[in-house]
Amino acid sequence: MSSDVDTIMQAAGVPKRAGAGERPLDADGVLRVLRTGEFAFETGGTLPGVDIAYETWGTLDADAANAVLLLHALTGDTHVARGISDEPGWWDGFVGPGRTIDTDKYFVVAPGMVGGCNGTTGPGSAAPDGRAWGSRFPFTTIRDSVRLEERLADALGVDAWHTVIGGSMGGARALEWAATLPGRVRRCVPIAATAASTAEQIAFAQIQTQAIRLDPDFAGGDYYRAPAAGPGEATGFGEGPVAGLGIARRMAHITYRSDVEFDARFGREPQCDEQPLGSPSLDRGRYQVESYLDYQAAKLVGRFDANSYLVITEALMSHDVGRGRGGVEAALGALEGIEFFVAAVDSDRLYWPAQAEAMAAHVPNRPNVEYIRTPVGHDGFLTDVEQLSAALKRTIFAD
Amino acid sequence: MSSDVDTIMQAAGVPKRAGAGERPLDADGVLRVLRTGEFAFETGGTLPGVDIAYETWGTLDADAANAVLLLHALTGDTHVARGISDEPGWWDGFVGPGRTIDTDKYFVVAPGMVGGCNGTTGPGSAAPDGRAWGSRFPFTTIRDSVRLEERLADALGVDAWHTVIGGSMGGARALEWAATLPGRVRRCVPIAATAASTAEQIAFAQIQTQAIRLDPDFAGGDYYRAPAAGPGEATGFGEGPVAGLGIARRMAHITYRSDVEFDARFGREPQCDEQPLGSPSLDRGRYQVESYLDYQAAKLVGRFDANSYLVITEALMSHDVGRGRGGVEAALGALEGIEFFVAAVDSDRLYWPAQAEAMAAHVPNRPNVEYIRTPVGHDGFLTDVEQLSAALKRTIFAD
Repeated sequence: MSSDVDTIMQAAGVPKRAGAGERPLDADGVLRVLRTGEFAFETGGTLPGVDIAYETWGTLDADAANAVLLLHALTGDTHVARGISDEPGWWDGFVGPGRTIDTDKYFVVAPGMVGGCNGTTGPGSAAPDGRAWGSRFPFTTIRDSVRLEERLADALGVDAWHTVIGGSMGGARALEWAATLPGRVRRCVPIAATAASTAEQIAFAQIQTQAIRLDPDFAGGDYYRAPAAGPGEATGFGEGPVAGLGIARRMAHITYRSDVEFDARFGREPQCDEQPLGSPSLDRGRYQVESYLDYQAAKLVGRFDANSYLVITEALMSHDVGRGRGGVEAALGALEGIEFFVAAVDSDRLYWPAQAEAMAAHVPNRPNVEYIRTPVGHDGFLTDVEQLSAALKRTIFAD
Repeated sequence: MSSDVDTIMQAAGVPKRAGAGERPLDADGVLRVLRTGEFAFETGGTLPGVDIAYETWGTLDADAANAVLLLHALTGDTHVARGISDEPGWWDGFVGPGRTIDTDKYFVVAPGMVGGCNGTTGPGSAAPDGRAWGSRFPFTTIRDSVRLEERLADALGVDAWHTVIGGSMGGARALEWAATLPGRVRRCVPIAATAASTAEQIAFAQIQTQAIRLDPDFAGGDYYRAPAAGPGEATGFGEGPVAGLGIARRMAHITYRSDVEFDARFGREPQCDEQPLGSPSLDRGRYQVESYLDYQAAKLVGRFDANSYLVITEALMSHDVGRGRGGVEAALGALEGIEFFVAAVDSDRLYWPAQAEAMAAHVPNRPNVEYIRTPVGHDGFLTDVEQLSAALKRTIFAD
């Protein structure tokens, strides 16, 4: 762990969090970057250096026992909650002073996953030849992200995390942290996640990667006008195969929500005065639900790089906590001494509750699965996470 | 109903059913064609003539009271069962001499849906200018198919169908028959279907149509080397946006099956000696489930035209038995005198059982929903339809 070459610095430029003028390096919710050295990926390939963008909230105790590692989902980022700027985070209300993850008590660290596009090194980052890595970016696994985040723990002086927590792919990352570095995890909270991506999750993911690669603007993955300009710089937004990325997002988004919710919100209504029944040689008008998916697609395309989507999606497909560890049950069963808190969304049809139940049945402390009850589907881990607050405060965050 | 211009003829050439030499025009399972005249589509557009390909089994009684209309699903065709050739059909074992739909007793008629590519007029058929209709093909609704099949009923001398039956989109077609021409339907059997396509079904469909249109070989829908050569000729197989059509099929296929089945069949196994974990700049190896979806995609691309997939998918999106009839409940409630038999697949997550329950609750005879119980998902209407045999023989096919 070449921590001797690791340097923490302010991110060079992430416009959406800029504008606060002089900001102390340890202020809440400020994007900064750990520059770390050469990294050899689990399944092959090496990068000469990796930047890990991250944000923190709160203050590390003298004994470094109050650090919480909070891991984002597939297209999530480091901005979990408000900090010195008022920009809301994706778990706002759940993380902050006096919140469930109380930043008056805990030091919360949220790193970006390697392969991403929000400041952490990914396919849009510059290779030594000055071009973006693009198609040359190594195949990435969830375990690679754990090994890189270990360097961040070292740099921050955290020997063991009080808790590692995440939802969806963040839950997979949390579980891999526990299995890869069990001595550095005291509590683990996977929410709406699985111990190993299933055949169906792989199937949904395959389609998404194929839609991106089908787009004529994919250009074999080397579509960048220019690589990221510096550490912490976001890359690839709106570039390359945006139509394919949009289709991938629509696909994913359906699996994140539920039939019941779509039916209640949209039914068969046409969008405003559009006419869905019409000649396909003209522009067919849309149903409301189509317009909604178009909106979701456009939003993601404006904030995410297609290659990062590919890299991280394939990492998630690779997720299997039992790989090389004698299978899932053996891997989970070996994690004595870590307190697990396992949660699921009752209406989730991407990470079925049965998968959380199976996970909980095989970790040593055998917790009851805690449920978020909502018709929304998988995205309940974002929209309704506070349903877990009481149970979390009784257990994981009781001290 | 210009039945004076309608002519029934042997299909010009459908290779997969050819080779039987001289075949009588009324032999079981022989593709033939009704050539019918000008047709004005429900939402605009007119074709100067429409061919309806169809097959029949059994013999029409003197009083024409034993005719069963059997309607195929999205990518189905007219070949429901074996006939004078031994080629198996998609409901083989369910339809035939001594089977549930007993062709010793019933005269079974299976027409291809307008817009298709297996002999019925569709986008790959020749327009008067000698080119394929392609992008010029009119927007098609399920009601258009009913109106055209009405001409077939006229030509065959069937005033009222003993039963109209179908699964999935075939169930939507059956229901539309009942609602559009209630005087011509005595019994109606929608299986694994809905009274109106829901927001989620529309959402899944939108993605599929977008994947096809994203393919650079789509060429705006005008990709045919040549139109169909004659009546009953299949068109467009393997032409145009085959990659996009393959993605659409993969997407659809996941919704046709189930998480449980995929997990049991494939788990996380790699395909043979392929290596799913590897550099994306190389050809990444596949998981078994990916190889399976690739196979499903290739199979469809070899037997279906992408434009037909678009036309019929958009027809299914438009499906709403309540449109222009005061809503679904009013439309169903008005169908006095038709005996409904409603069936669902318990593990179906595309046409949820709740949709069949809602349908059954609003048709006048209020049947109990009959269930196909299988872990397979929606495709249970194909793989396990014989679970309905006993109930169907007690009710619909009791005479």
